[in-house]
Amino acid sequence: MTVRVGLLGATGAVGQRLIQLLDPHPEFEIAALTASEESAGKSYREAAKWRVEAPIPEAVAQMEVGATTPEDVPDDVSLIFSSLPSSVGAEVEPDFCEAGYVVSSNSSNGRMDPDVPLTIPEVNPEHVDLIEVQRDERGWDGALLKNPNCSTITMVPPLEALDRAFGLTDVRVSTLQAVSGAGYSGVSSMEIIDNAIPHIGGEEQKMETESRKLLGEFDGAEVRLHDMDVAASCNRIPTLDGHLENVWADTAEDVTADAAADAMDEVTGVDLSSSPEHLIKVFEEPDRPQPRLDRNTEGGMGVAVGGFRETTDGVQFNCLAHNTMRGAAGASILNGELLLQNGYL
Amino acid sequence: MTVRVGLLGATGAVGQRLIQLLDPHPEFEIAALTASEESAGKSYREAAKWRVEAPIPEAVAQMEVGATTPEDVPDDVSLIFSSLPSSVGAEVEPDFCEAGYVVSSNSSNGRMDPDVPLTIPEVNPEHVDLIEVQRDERGWDGALLKNPNCSTITMVPPLEALDRAFGLTDVRVSTLQAVSGAGYSGVSSMEIIDNAIPHIGGEEQKMETESRKLLGEFDGAEVRLHDMDVAASCNRIPTLDGHLENVWADTAEDVTADAAADAMDEVTGVDLSSSPEHLIKVFEEPDRPQPRLDRNTEGGMGVAVGGFRETTDGVQFNCLAHNTMRGAAGASILNGELLLQNGYL
Amino acid sequence: MTVRVGLLGATGAVGQRLIQLLDPHPEFEIAALTASEESAGKSYREAAKWRVEAPIPEAVAQMEVGATTPEDVPDDVSLIFSSLPSSVGAEVEPDFCEAGYVVSSNSSNGRMDPDVPLTIPEVNPEHVDLIEVQRDERGWDGALLKNPNCSTITMVPPLEALDRAFGLTDVRVSTLQAVSGAGYSGVSSMEIIDNAIPHIGGEEQKMETESRKLLGEFDGAEVRLHDMDVAASCNRIPTLDGHLENVWADTAEDVTADAAADAMDEVTGVDLSSSPEHLIKVFEEPDRPQPRLDRNTEGGMGVAVGGFRETTDGVQFNCLAHNTMRGAAGASILNGELLLQNGYL
Amino acid sequence: MTVRVGLLGATGAVGQRLIQLLDPHPEFEIAALTASEESAGKSYREAAKWRVEAPIPEAVAQMEVGATTPEDVPDDVSLIFSSLPSSVGAEVEPDFCEAGYVVSSNSSNGRMDPDVPLTIPEVNPEHVDLIEVQRDERGWDGALLKNPNCSTITMVPPLEALDRAFGLTDVRVSTLQAVSGAGYSGVSSMEIIDNAIPHIGGEEQKMETESRKLLGEFDGAEVRLHDMDVAASCNRIPTLDGHLENVWADTAEDVTADAAADAMDEVTGVDLSSSPEHLIKVFEEPDRPQPRLDRNTEGGMGVAVGGFRETTDGVQFNCLAHNTMRGAAGASILNGELLLQNGYL
Repeated sequence: MTVRVGLLGATGAVGQRLIQLLDPHPEFEIAALTASEESAGKSYREAAKWRVEAPIPEAVAQMEVGATTPEDVPDDVSLIFSSLPSSVGAEVEPDFCEAGYVVSSNSSNGRMDPDVPLTIPEVNPEHVDLIEVQRDERGWDGALLKNPNCSTITMVPPLEALDRAFGLTDVRVSTLQAVSGAGYSGVSSMEIIDNAIPHIGGEEQKMETESRKLLGEFDGAEVRLHDMDVAASCNRIPTLDGHLENVWADTAEDVTADAAADAMDEVTGVDLSSSPEHLIKVFEEPDRPQPRLDRNTEGGMGVAVGGFRETTDGVQFNCLAHNTMRGAAGASILNGELLLQNGYL
Repeated sequence: MTVRVGLLGATGAVGQRLIQLLDPHPEFEIAALTASEESAGKSYREAAKWRVEAPIPEAVAQMEVGATTPEDVPDDVSLIFSSLPSSVGAEVEPDFCEAGYVVSSNSSNGRMDPDVPLTIPEVNPEHVDLIEVQRDERGWDGALLKNPNCSTITMVPPLEALDRAFGLTDVRVSTLQAVSGAGYSGVSSMEIIDNAIPHIGGEEQKMETESRKLLGEFDGAEVRLHDMDVAASCNRIPTLDGHLENVWADTAEDVTADAAADAMDEVTGVDLSSSPEHLIKVFEEPDRPQPRLDRNTEGGMGVAVGGFRETTDGVQFNCLAHNTMRGAAGASILNGELLLQNGYL
Repeated sequence: MTVRVGLLGATGAVGQRLIQLLDPHPEFEIAALTASEESAGKSYREAAKWRVEAPIPEAVAQMEVGATTPEDVPDDVSLIFSSLPSSVGAEVEPDFCEAGYVVSSNSSNGRMDPDVPLTIPEVNPEHVDLIEVQRDERGWDGALLKNPNCSTITMVPPLEALDRAFGLTDVRVSTLQAVSGAGYSGVSSMEIIDNAIPHIGGEEQKMETESRKLLGEFDGAEVRLHDMDVAASCNRIPTLDGHLENVWADTAEDVTADAAADAMDEVTGVDLSSSPEHLIKVFEEPDRPQPRLDRNTEGGMGVAVGGFRETTDGVQFNCLAHNTMRGAAGASILNGELLLQNGYL
Repeated sequence: MTVRVGLLGATGAVGQRLIQLLDPHPEFEIAALTASEESAGKSYREAAKWRVEAPIPEAVAQMEVGATTPEDVPDDVSLIFSSLPSSVGAEVEPDFCEAGYVVSSNSSNGRMDPDVPLTIPEVNPEHVDLIEVQRDERGWDGALLKNPNCSTITMVPPLEALDRAFGLTDVRVSTLQAVSGAGYSGVSSMEIIDNAIPHIGGEEQKMETESRKLLGEFDGAEVRLHDMDVAASCNRIPTLDGHLENVWADTAEDVTADAAADAMDEVTGVDLSSSPEHLIKVFEEPDRPQPRLDRNTEGGMGVAVGGFRETTDGVQFNCLAHNTMRGAAGASILNGELLLQNGYL
């Protein structure tokens, strides 16, 4: 029995990755695609400037794109994947939830709302039940679940491994982010060729707050943020895909470089279709992971780490994940699988 | 009265920048060029694969390149600029010092030797007198002075301003370094297009130790390293020139973002030909400095900073300098001017 | 006596180059800046996302940006530089001409109109007098003069040298064009990193027709297109500035590689402020000219050539020019100087 | 029954692709790897700086690398793939042929020798029998077969389709070649970031001569070169993989853009394991093929074409192939399959 799903914002960069990943998905079947006004009514082939290396799945290419309203989505769709710009997401996602749809959203709006679960299934699957609180408060038949920002997702699985083993107190993180993170026309070539941009609007704050919610504790009523101190510095560089991050993690207990690597190496995936067997790949070579060579680790759903060095107060290391796979489209799909597993669909 | 100077390793990337900067220099005049065996005997035009945007100064183009031994350098040369690979520098620089030449060196060998001054004239000019100790110990008529690594030079002037005003305790720095820092054939295009490399051999250690020597105290006999804790993470990215760095500086006294920026903005140059009037340019735009737009600040001899944010224990900011100008060739020339001003030539 | 000039579309990539070049100009003084509706009323500093390496000239930064209508331009302005999108240019340029302004336009609209002169002052300055025909026909007090497309400008000076000496019959040209040719947001980084795009809409046709008009004969009444056969293939590649072109020129008379190079080497500039002394720089090295190394030849106003080889029917060579200097902003300014020299201002 | 094969120059860029392609090959089994002196004796994992995205096949990683002499290759190896630098190839390939090995070589030495077959199995498979002539003349038990240069391979299949249908008279081709074509350290990042290089030593000549041999006629005794006139202009650009080419083909008979595309679209592969079903993929979008999007057409073994336009004397179009797959490693393997099919192994 497959679940029929709809995609809001289906023509964008994340929307295209969603289609690529959902096409062969064992449990989900694409049944509705929406986009902006000017695309509504066109076939997906006409509406999207398809830029994934593989061709558009033929069935999807011929589907008609609808407007982004609950009325344009068939009733037998039960799960919605949303990758809308955050301002649009803030406006329309509640409409879908009210209309009874369960929404797994990649949009940044509302991620820190107290009654909105923010989950990485391998890290904090139990947070999904915050939906009960949400339904109580908002009176929705549907539900809204968020995945974190791509740069947050990259560092949190390794941080969680450290936190569990050694207790995190302070985190400093510097990112080298790929241009695809900003969408197709997000970064102009004149801005980025032979250049780097040491700031991404709002991104530092997202990493600093979302990471504390993900590693926070859910007591059935609310999520208490982890009390670690996180400071981020975000840079855009001329890479296509794959966010690379330099992390300094100060820990409550003593940690060696080897112990940190071992703690990460042990992390397995969870029992969901899109979760990899080995969540974190540990490199011994000090110059790995690298975006182009390692972004497709575990089909783009793994996190690669390396460069472990002890510091006075903890350990430093590098981590990398594919920002539109593990960091966006794949993250939303994993959350959809979590919703299914937990009976929300 | 101009000082006649010689260049060791004159055909490399830094050697070419030295020639570009020395050609119009008011006090120095190029009188000797050396390179490896196979170049010796050729004209500079033949020996060098010139890659600076401006053409080779005609007089230099016609000079004959000599071997890298004191015998091949005329006696009336009193100052030597060395930009040799460190293994070669370790071997031949002492020969030149013994033969009575004063060497301003960009090579990394010996920078942390207790009797070798490591200076940025705007930061620790008084360290130059460590030469007296050096001459006592080594019995040299000449002398050996070093400038720091390009990535160290970029962050130390802003750090010195913070240290003077607020006292530094901990520094975390993540670098986004240009390919020219590795020399002409240092980084292959297949390694770096659509990629980043999260490790540069030896570079992290250089930043961690050199910075503490530069900010250390010289009491006439030795330099006591600054006791701040420094941890670096070095990345190569696809930019041509200009090292960008994300810094977290923890301070002994409270600091605000504005106070940190003000402390840097006040820093002036020193009374040397190649020192800029304004050493540190403070940007208010959060997405500056950027390598391509800002590497030529103050003719490539300034340091650009921006992105100030308060953290729990101090302040974070970004800094940028041109790695082959302020960070290498210009650094050596400034040190040459310091040697001249202090009577060592 | 300086001529007061106005800039239409002053915030774009070409507009910014115009400001950079006009700021120190001996004969022209910026007196008006216009842009789109949402910029009107702002200071230029606020309105423009300035991306030229040098800072905005202070006087310009403080000027108020007006709307793009003759009413918003002071009467004492006599020369207008237009770098508007062609659809906008087609609409508003005639208004300015009718209102008495002389317009030197970089916009592509109307370039092939029989009564619009299309000039490169070093190539076909006499075509400027087509303005007399234009005024007769259109009843304008003002006038409209066009410069060609950047990719056309790059090849036409060398082609003109060949045509004069050997007679051109067929031209095949393949271009490697920089992203700045499409404006700031013209080429997204996701489209062009690790990629090339083998087509630029309309560009092939522009090169094929404009070149024949530029080398055509003006008999006082009309310009007869040169009867050579031109076929172009245009590619976008990941370079910032500088269009490189591979040309095959078949000639009526026999030509050797050396004779072709000599014919180009002899070409001088003309007696206008922005025309370089030496218009065409001939490289002997077969791997030059290269965009990054040679785009600033003669301050960005020269054309660099190299790679001459004889073919069965003529000669092949490469040429390069800075697309926003010689190819756009500088081209319009040169045409403004031509208008001044010929008494049209 | 699998054929045991040896790889000469196994650690280079093409050698690595050969291993990637041979690992799952149905007929060939890697039995020997050779490299330069300093690698001999090491495991392949140690000897190679592996840079293919997929990991080294484990069995290959553990193989010991031998020296590049017939003595270091086991007797039961019957087919040798050579991707040596041409100077080394010229020296050692004859030794292997003399020792009885059949060599399928990607090295450029000897490609135009009258008794050395140069083949693309889908284009001129019958040339393989030139081996009979070769054995007669050279007295070898083994044999030497060459594949063409990567830039030649890209254009010849589409040209062959045109020649068969319309007869080729003149060809002009301009290339935009990826950096991997020069090997791992062939193009330094400082040379190519924000740049293009309009010349590749020897490449123009290879395209001009090899294409005429490939389309030439073999009468059992010799190959008569096709009498078309070919002129090439070769450029290196900042792409990783995939050579893009702009071609002007003049034809004896009239040709339309559609007819040219149809002639190419009909071309099928041949009955060899590595030959794709559809050799040439025709794009209708004028801005395709593009290197990053289309280099993996048919698993990297197809040729993609597009951009058809009629010219006065024929047609112009663009073509693209993966330079280290179809253009090098895959080409050699295909030739190995041709040798097997024709009884030379």
